[in-house]
Amino acid sequence: MAIDCSPSRPLRLDDVERWDAETDVLIVGFGIAGACAAIEARNAGARVDVFEVASAGGGSAALSGGEFYLGGGGGTPAQRAAGFEDATDDFFKYLMMAGGPGADEARVRRYADNAVAHFHWLAEQGIPFKGTYLPGKWLEPLTDDTLIWSGSEAAWPFAQQARPAPRGHAAQLPGWGAGKLIMEKLCARALERGATAHCNARALALVADRNDAVHGVVVRIDGEPRAVRAHRGVVLCAGGFICNEAMLRTYAPLVLGCPNPTTGGNDDGSGIRMGISVGAAAIHMDQFFATRPFFPPESLVKGIFVNELGQRFINEDAYHGRVTHYMLRQPNGRAWLLVDDEIFARPVTNPNVDIAAVGETWDEVERELGLPAGELTHTVEGYNRHAAQGADPLWHKQAAFLKPLTQAPFAALSYCPADYPASMFTLGGLWTATDGRVLTPAGEAVPGLFAAGRTACGLPRWGEGYSSGMSLGDSSFFGRQAGQAAARQQARIIR
Amino acid sequence: MAIDCSPSRPLRLDDVERWDAETDVLIVGFGIAGACAAIEARNAGARVDVFEVASAGGGSAALSGGEFYLGGGGGTPAQRAAGFEDATDDFFKYLMMAGGPGADEARVRRYADNAVAHFHWLAEQGIPFKGTYLPGKWLEPLTDDTLIWSGSEAAWPFAQQARPAPRGHAAQLPGWGAGKLIMEKLCARALERGATAHCNARALALVADRNDAVHGVVVRIDGEPRAVRAHRGVVLCAGGFICNEAMLRTYAPLVLGCPNPTTGGNDDGSGIRMGISVGAAAIHMDQFFATRPFFPPESLVKGIFVNELGQRFINEDAYHGRVTHYMLRQPNGRAWLLVDDEIFARPVTNPNVDIAAVGETWDEVERELGLPAGELTHTVEGYNRHAAQGADPLWHKQAAFLKPLTQAPFAALSYCPADYPASMFTLGGLWTATDGRVLTPAGEAVPGLFAAGRTACGLPRWGEGYSSGMSLGDSSFFGRQAGQAAARQQARIIR
Repeated sequence: MAIDCSPSRPLRLDDVERWDAETDVLIVGFGIAGACAAIEARNAGARVDVFEVASAGGGSAALSGGEFYLGGGGGTPAQRAAGFEDATDDFFKYLMMAGGPGADEARVRRYADNAVAHFHWLAEQGIPFKGTYLPGKWLEPLTDDTLIWSGSEAAWPFAQQARPAPRGHAAQLPGWGAGKLIMEKLCARALERGATAHCNARALALVADRNDAVHGVVVRIDGEPRAVRAHRGVVLCAGGFICNEAMLRTYAPLVLGCPNPTTGGNDDGSGIRMGISVGAAAIHMDQFFATRPFFPPESLVKGIFVNELGQRFINEDAYHGRVTHYMLRQPNGRAWLLVDDEIFARPVTNPNVDIAAVGETWDEVERELGLPAGELTHTVEGYNRHAAQGADPLWHKQAAFLKPLTQAPFAALSYCPADYPASMFTLGGLWTATDGRVLTPAGEAVPGLFAAGRTACGLPRWGEGYSSGMSLGDSSFFGRQAGQAAARQQARIIR
Repeated sequence: MAIDCSPSRPLRLDDVERWDAETDVLIVGFGIAGACAAIEARNAGARVDVFEVASAGGGSAALSGGEFYLGGGGGTPAQRAAGFEDATDDFFKYLMMAGGPGADEARVRRYADNAVAHFHWLAEQGIPFKGTYLPGKWLEPLTDDTLIWSGSEAAWPFAQQARPAPRGHAAQLPGWGAGKLIMEKLCARALERGATAHCNARALALVADRNDAVHGVVVRIDGEPRAVRAHRGVVLCAGGFICNEAMLRTYAPLVLGCPNPTTGGNDDGSGIRMGISVGAAAIHMDQFFATRPFFPPESLVKGIFVNELGQRFINEDAYHGRVTHYMLRQPNGRAWLLVDDEIFARPVTNPNVDIAAVGETWDEVERELGLPAGELTHTVEGYNRHAAQGADPLWHKQAAFLKPLTQAPFAALSYCPADYPASMFTLGGLWTATDGRVLTPAGEAVPGLFAAGRTACGLPRWGEGYSSGMSLGDSSFFGRQAGQAAARQQARIIR
């Protein structure tokens, strides 16, 4: 077969010499979005074939912490058991704030209205949730508990507009990395339901007719290009583009050179490029998740960040990814966490943190950092004075994390780029309707094409608003929607 | 003719029943990019037809201040006459910084190497430049002078990396609005050179073959769709998308609702959508120019901006658009310019500026603004102490604009969003090579398609780095490149 095609250039239907295989719903990528799409498309009675470039399913989700961001409806079972009521309206408001200026109201609405049901669905697929609550401030549970505070819910300005509740739901696995367990369960379920998974199979290009309607995909298996026809729809679940240096340079230059990409290794942007090749809009392509976690232990949240002007620039109890985005935009990207002896600790994820300055007085620390005289000391003095009264008039940190930093010796932990590069992944992707249909810039659906997971621009679309569990929550939920919608399409018999 | 097509959906070549007209180079939009493309394509001997949706040429450039950002090569005649030497390397470095993290080195290089020649070319087209230098800090010359400081050249951190020189070159016209004069000259020249302009002609869609190679455009003239064939190339010069609310919501939500769009009225994004419809990459679509000018008079640059925490957040001698972007990202977008009696003035462009607080002491001003006690006063005290010594250790404002704010009464001029909405236009657009070829996400050219002006993502692609004259400079220069490159294409005889 002629394969003058690429992710950026569809093979035209007329050039398909023969179909090497046929299915109803063709899914590109066997990560979390693809697995959930496969399960639902099978549940709807469609034939399903999944093509995965790696040698096994799992994708980037398998390397994740394994948390889902869920709430609303009065609370998930885990929320209720721990005594948290979570109204859909509060959950909706939080997600709208977390989506930032480009938040997609219809998408947020659909998710907020259905997240509790989605929790039950995930459990039904075999994902274990212990159901217990772990208080405190964690990145992920180190225990096998379920529910944690995993975002900025309790922090200003979120808590002022949406009643806070913990919403991170982790699968039951002692220690970190429950993503692997989740993906084992979901991939197994997809296969049990009768989906066929083809691994080591790279999607090379879409097959599209002259009007850019999508009819299938060219995949490379055993070194040979094969044309696979999709009678009902193609669902792109091929991840983001953190692994594609050229695309990062073009679309998201701030991510370029990130030494700690968060990826299973195949977020090469091919799914997004395939969508663009048939006229789809790719949106918020500059946006990315970034973090330099600075806790646990939680005591460090009682420290304060300052920039090279000696100014505070964020409430430190916000989500660590939000704090990191604020760090990145400070002059020269430089920031330090100021701590006193009482709260000093080495961050769990970065025990070798660079201690940039130590002093018996804050004045000494200021001088050792080489900051403008009188600024850091003014900042600490004001912070301490208000913290003693349980107040933070500048940045509104919660009282629980307010404590005067008065117990010498004092230290400044470096969060400067050279000392601690951030982990990142991309948030931009194809514009989709809530049922996963891929849209053109005019908001018209590209016939036959769906997308979910980080190939789509989802709930998480603003680095400053990201909360742990949003990407898995979005990818699993909207993967399901896309699988259902594709399966519902009228089968096309063409030629 | 069937016209099941739109800017987001090309008419396929096979569906063209007949060509209503033929040309070599078809240009969409008779603004500055289109006019320059037309002149050069004619100079290269091609037949040229320009289709303009408005009833006359000019586009958004005709409503602009009429400045070109030019330098390098040792200096333009106006720079040299005023005693400014401007090395290409300094000009290059500045443009790279101004382009931000996504700066396109090849594009900047081509521009920097040729900007002096471009100045001469503009003059040869009939644009008058008096050649004189107007010192001081202006938005545009109110006189008929040529050369002004129109960016952040002399400001930190730009001046530390690239030797500064004034580079804004305004056409000779007393008062503001030389853009109209420029466009009269360029449009007239295009017609003199033999280009044919069709006004009241809306481009409806591209005509593309099955491989997305572009062969022409469907235009609506006198209510009828007409297929116009382009034997050598189509050049999209249809402006940005500040007028398209749906596109703003999708791509650039921070611009949505801007009550002061900077546009001739037809920046509807159709050029960008047409590119996307044949697989082009649209890049940095979230980026935008924004300004709330706070000078002239220049004395106001001696004031200091504070946010609602009482902190300074920028060196006030930076370009007003850069200052505005920093304002927009402060908590709640709120900012005030603090002035004392000696420098107080009403900004020329906003004489009814809201005076949010007045006091005999800074403490009074702080209280009247309702800011946290002791912060604004600390900021002013430190600023004054250093300014008295000609220093600004926090934000490095130039000594010429440093003066202790000690002469009561004191005032805070409001730059809060509700009091003074910013003017904006979009900077994102189609990804292009330096000769204007439109590129897919893989960096491959879309055959037959070129773009320039704000339909393309050009030199100005980062709101924080914009400098006056960058958009006209980019649009005119790269419009020329696109016109030349399209004219050089091998004529295609298809069918």
